[in-house]
Amino acid sequence: MSNPRINKILNVFEQKKIDALLVTKDVNIQYLTYTPSSESWLLICPKKVFYITDFRYVLEAEKSLKGISVKRYENSIHETLFQIAKSMHVRRIGFDERHMTLATFKVLKKECPKEIRLVEGNNIVEDLREVKERVEIESIIKALKIHKQAHEFLKKAVKPGISEKALFFKLEEFVRSKGVTFSFAPIIASGPNSCHPHAKVTERKIRRDDSVLIDMGIDLKGYKSDLTRMFFLGKISPLVQEVYHFVKAAQLEAIGKIKSGIPVGEIDQTARNYLEKQKLEKYFGHALGHGVGLEIHESPRLSQKSTAVLKEGMIITVEPAVYIPDKFGIRIEDMVLVTKEGCEVLSDNIH
Amino acid sequence: MSNPRINKILNVFEQKKIDALLVTKDVNIQYLTYTPSSESWLLICPKKVFYITDFRYVLEAEKSLKGISVKRYENSIHETLFQIAKSMHVRRIGFDERHMTLATFKVLKKECPKEIRLVEGNNIVEDLREVKERVEIESIIKALKIHKQAHEFLKKAVKPGISEKALFFKLEEFVRSKGVTFSFAPIIASGPNSCHPHAKVTERKIRRDDSVLIDMGIDLKGYKSDLTRMFFLGKISPLVQEVYHFVKAAQLEAIGKIKSGIPVGEIDQTARNYLEKQKLEKYFGHALGHGVGLEIHESPRLSQKSTAVLKEGMIITVEPAVYIPDKFGIRIEDMVLVTKEGCEVLSDNIH
Repeated sequence: MSNPRINKILNVFEQKKIDALLVTKDVNIQYLTYTPSSESWLLICPKKVFYITDFRYVLEAEKSLKGISVKRYENSIHETLFQIAKSMHVRRIGFDERHMTLATFKVLKKECPKEIRLVEGNNIVEDLREVKERVEIESIIKALKIHKQAHEFLKKAVKPGISEKALFFKLEEFVRSKGVTFSFAPIIASGPNSCHPHAKVTERKIRRDDSVLIDMGIDLKGYKSDLTRMFFLGKISPLVQEVYHFVKAAQLEAIGKIKSGIPVGEIDQTARNYLEKQKLEKYFGHALGHGVGLEIHESPRLSQKSTAVLKEGMIITVEPAVYIPDKFGIRIEDMVLVTKEGCEVLSDNIH
Repeated sequence: MSNPRINKILNVFEQKKIDALLVTKDVNIQYLTYTPSSESWLLICPKKVFYITDFRYVLEAEKSLKGISVKRYENSIHETLFQIAKSMHVRRIGFDERHMTLATFKVLKKECPKEIRLVEGNNIVEDLREVKERVEIESIIKALKIHKQAHEFLKKAVKPGISEKALFFKLEEFVRSKGVTFSFAPIIASGPNSCHPHAKVTERKIRRDDSVLIDMGIDLKGYKSDLTRMFFLGKISPLVQEVYHFVKAAQLEAIGKIKSGIPVGEIDQTARNYLEKQKLEKYFGHALGHGVGLEIHESPRLSQKSTAVLKEGMIITVEPAVYIPDKFGIRIEDMVLVTKEGCEVLSDNIH
């Protein structure tokens, strides 16, 4: 097999006690085949890889997938899956329990030939995707270059009188003119709207002396950027200034702790401790950040609940925030590449 | 409870042998609460309904949900779910196995108090959503009115020289100018691109004598339209003309069979039989249609595999098609309201 990502998957088969891996999540299939996928499954066997799809996608798949056997299913995807598994003498098929509904699992289990077992194989592809290859890091840096242009555009476009929605359309026009798309629906939250961490874009017109929270990202051929910046218009109240200062300081403290080998919980705790000292911790209700790559939110999650440890080559966001109910919210989000000795803030030049 | 949809859910508790229903799918929660929802769960108990959400959504939920108790979870959504269930003395919680991953189910099962059982409650909300209320039918008709305007716009905009992508942007601009959005990413497939049932919008420029397949829909406050129309430019080859004629005739035969009480498989078979007589059946690889409402694809699915029966008030698409590999595709899709004695083609005036 000349596909290095699939070779890495095959390398963990022994440790995971499986002799095939069923991949059901689109973006994981995209990662492993270097080709976007939809409503299809990938079965990785030691000697051969199968892409199981239907009528709608079979023609395109045959053209675009190299070194992978495309199988069109007629009756059901399960039936074809087990036919292939039998023909390949597979005994233990791993699959990710987070990417299969209970209903689908019940059908699979019922139809599973008695010589085959379906076993838990969570996180196998995600563990690989967490650590970015050089080509992936370069793709994200390219997305950030366009992001910087969009940010410069915003600095001129965010002004009193324009509605959040009108600003969204202008920003989208700019993004499209660069031949790219958003990596997610941007958040443009002006004035009190910014107190909602996931605010929707509204018809509210931006006012003099508003602070405006903009969380956006660029998608460049699948790889994504994700940054939040605050735009201040006119006079900023002392309270907003102070909170901004504390959130930025919390972010810098957290970033200062990032390096390969550190548990992600420690990074999250660092920002949280800082905000606690300022009595602001209760206004920071979400995790500190997340991995970014082919997905806008991917492994690892920088939260207290996670037991993950930072690895060289991870790209993560660091986004502490303070949301004062009904008043305002401040979030500052940057993208950081974890290195052996520390980290590199990839979005450092966007301000 | 003054919410008529939740009352209908409560009415099936006895038959389904449950004393609570856990709803985990966003659009089902939206239907039952008349409010869009994200990453939250709804627990319906006979005396009280709970919306379980986190930090990010709790403020908005408290403002917008009437007659529903909003509970913010801290540790995990499961923990709060079971706390509520215990306090309400619930014994059997139904849930839809198609809307829960195996991983989530395993956690739920592990944490479930011994006096509570989680039981299959598939399709309960979907069974309700299948049959549209008068206000829902009116919403879809309103979406179709704007769809007609977009169609008239397209009749002028589809011309040689414009790329599929440029046409997409123009169409989007038009749609937005009407204050609405697309109900899904439109398919604009010109010339040979139309042979892919789910073609992506490409940079291909539309040529003289092309046929162009456009599958699009309007979303008006959640309710959706979904139609496919063929646009012919210049000279149409006799083969394309003939296939178009047969697809249209197959559609009319199928529509002629629609009325309350008929199994959906019969409707699908009618179109398939017609195409079989023309030796075109093998080029028609997907189901004949699907329900439309808050989701672009919802129950019932008009397929051979479905055992569903048409009911008065369902709104379904009827979309026979013929895709000749590497040559061209023809699909004609209309929206039909099922009535007691027959049906009404809601999109009849869009041509």
